[in-house]
Amino acid sequence: MRHGGNIDAFAQQLGCLPEDIIDFSANINPQQAVDWQDLTLSLTPYSDPEYTQLKQALRQRYPLPDSADIELFNGASAAIFALLRYLQPKDVVLYAPLYGEYQRLANTLGCKLHIINRFNIAWGEVRTPTNPTYRINVGAKLCEYQQIPEHSTVIFVNPATPDGTLYDLSDLLTLWQAKNCQIIIDESFLDFCPVDPVNDSVTQHIDQQSQIYLIKSLSKFYGCAGVRVGFIAATPKFIQGLKQFEPAWKLSTFDMAYMQQALANNDFIAQTREQTAQNRALLQQVLESSGKFEKVYPSSANFLLARLPKNVSGDDLQTDLAAARILIRVCDNFLGLNERYVRFAVKDKAAIAQLQQALANCGGFGS
Amino acid sequence: MRHGGNIDAFAQQLGCLPEDIIDFSANINPQQAVDWQDLTLSLTPYSDPEYTQLKQALRQRYPLPDSADIELFNGASAAIFALLRYLQPKDVVLYAPLYGEYQRLANTLGCKLHIINRFNIAWGEVRTPTNPTYRINVGAKLCEYQQIPEHSTVIFVNPATPDGTLYDLSDLLTLWQAKNCQIIIDESFLDFCPVDPVNDSVTQHIDQQSQIYLIKSLSKFYGCAGVRVGFIAATPKFIQGLKQFEPAWKLSTFDMAYMQQALANNDFIAQTREQTAQNRALLQQVLESSGKFEKVYPSSANFLLARLPKNVSGDDLQTDLAAARILIRVCDNFLGLNERYVRFAVKDKAAIAQLQQALANCGGFGS
Repeated sequence: MRHGGNIDAFAQQLGCLPEDIIDFSANINPQQAVDWQDLTLSLTPYSDPEYTQLKQALRQRYPLPDSADIELFNGASAAIFALLRYLQPKDVVLYAPLYGEYQRLANTLGCKLHIINRFNIAWGEVRTPTNPTYRINVGAKLCEYQQIPEHSTVIFVNPATPDGTLYDLSDLLTLWQAKNCQIIIDESFLDFCPVDPVNDSVTQHIDQQSQIYLIKSLSKFYGCAGVRVGFIAATPKFIQGLKQFEPAWKLSTFDMAYMQQALANNDFIAQTREQTAQNRALLQQVLESSGKFEKVYPSSANFLLARLPKNVSGDDLQTDLAAARILIRVCDNFLGLNERYVRFAVKDKAAIAQLQQALANCGGFGS
Repeated sequence: MRHGGNIDAFAQQLGCLPEDIIDFSANINPQQAVDWQDLTLSLTPYSDPEYTQLKQALRQRYPLPDSADIELFNGASAAIFALLRYLQPKDVVLYAPLYGEYQRLANTLGCKLHIINRFNIAWGEVRTPTNPTYRINVGAKLCEYQQIPEHSTVIFVNPATPDGTLYDLSDLLTLWQAKNCQIIIDESFLDFCPVDPVNDSVTQHIDQQSQIYLIKSLSKFYGCAGVRVGFIAATPKFIQGLKQFEPAWKLSTFDMAYMQQALANNDFIAQTREQTAQNRALLQQVLESSGKFEKVYPSSANFLLARLPKNVSGDDLQTDLAAARILIRVCDNFLGLNERYVRFAVKDKAAIAQLQQALANCGGFGS
């Protein structure tokens, strides 16, 4: 099982049920904001074409400045595609390590890719990377921080995946704007972090001059990958233009009802933030003390990236953990990483205890 | 209330609840194939990225020849947009009267529009239009049946909206193929018709040479506008190319579960077909005998188009029917129609009886 997101196939391979799997592979809240059976909704005849109620709930939870508006999409993946298609960028600057989907989309749309490696900084010392020189063999042009093409489109995920580094974007924004870049910031994991997801969001900088576009998936934090709702925030004028290229109907009535309730569930939100911080610390300790990893990266998000020693691959570790029905994410298809990198989602204490046990039982590498 | 699809605003205007409205405006099955509260589903962590089970259910219900494959979309509206974007047609031929969305999409994508009027044929005499000369003032080039541009992309809805005419496409397919057209057929309402939705589907003609693309919405027949699932059928090679431009995740897990059950509900399917035929005949008789309409168009689908006398507009009729909380569809925003055209969805006998009463109480026009 190489990639996350296919728990069914893993279960089948092990001859057990999907619900028997302890899934550390999906970087999603293990708790759900809403019990879907409690939802009240009507599926007929038509849903509100303006998504009025859902937009209200979103603005309540994530207040926007007057200079910003939002458009909804059936997931962040659909949003980023729509955004890139509308911007039609010639040059796209990606900050690796990065989820492979961004590279795929930019390639599909015929953009010229420029890759910057975020990992060439001293962890914990600075939050804004300043001295990147590490070269990544991805067949794309290496681009130093200071060598971003004029008028290019930068894509930056904050906190970043799959490492969970939370960046202070001030310096980067100044740099990007000096280069007249279009700036796409993906904050799908910001709610998990020990910051204010409103005031510390890049949305506060959206205005006519800034060329900032926010992408946000809601399924990660609210624990509902199957609910397809994401959004883009940008200037009202930009949103109006973008909307022309959208179908008249796109969101599931069920998903809208689910998300409206989720966004208003303040207890769940507070609990998730608290438990993520606690369980992340616990998971970090378990991984570090296992002696199986060369490095565990510090994270502000709901997942931890770890690097295995030389000559040990994530597939080896997965094979060992399969006996305990534990599924992890091998990060070899992340832009800029290889088979030695594995990611663990922050799960509850019971799952972490099972992981600890399974790591202790692991075979011939590490301690 | 000018357009369908906004029952909430109409209810608010009347000071009643949306469920108090008798909605003849939405051309959708008034019955639902599935009670959503009976659904069993898991929203976490990730849904199957290949939509395996839903695709199986679709192929069971709508068997395809080996020469065809399908791709799923979050609704037919998203499907047609994706298809046009991928085909990038220079010339688009639309057959009016037609739902305005097709024109909007083709305009948005910068296509040159060619409009053919389907209404210039003797109803009931032939099923394939042969002698179109009527000109429509839509600011687009009028295109005779024989004057379709070479290599253009034709879009044809069968049965057609908003009139419900079911066409035998044989002659048209021959004509289009002689012009090397890319042929988009929308069969979203075919299941309501007294034909075999499999063997009488254009999917049977899909092969390497034919350049035929089927679009199908599932929400109309299965009574679930809020469930966003539609599909495109084309050659496997074409589907493979189209998929590259699709996001990794796009369908709601809930919508998929709903649709899987709906597609397997054979009793519902048989009942809908039978009741639609019965109630359409009843509605036709009610409209014709009301004396309010200059013409009621024969239909094979789940809706009837009617034309009001000169100097009477659909808005006048809607105003009169509002007292009975009846919402209808005024067709002035359909390409090729004007404010004298109104559409009635085929609803159940009780609703039709209330419409009959309300028409009898109507004001100063007609009989």
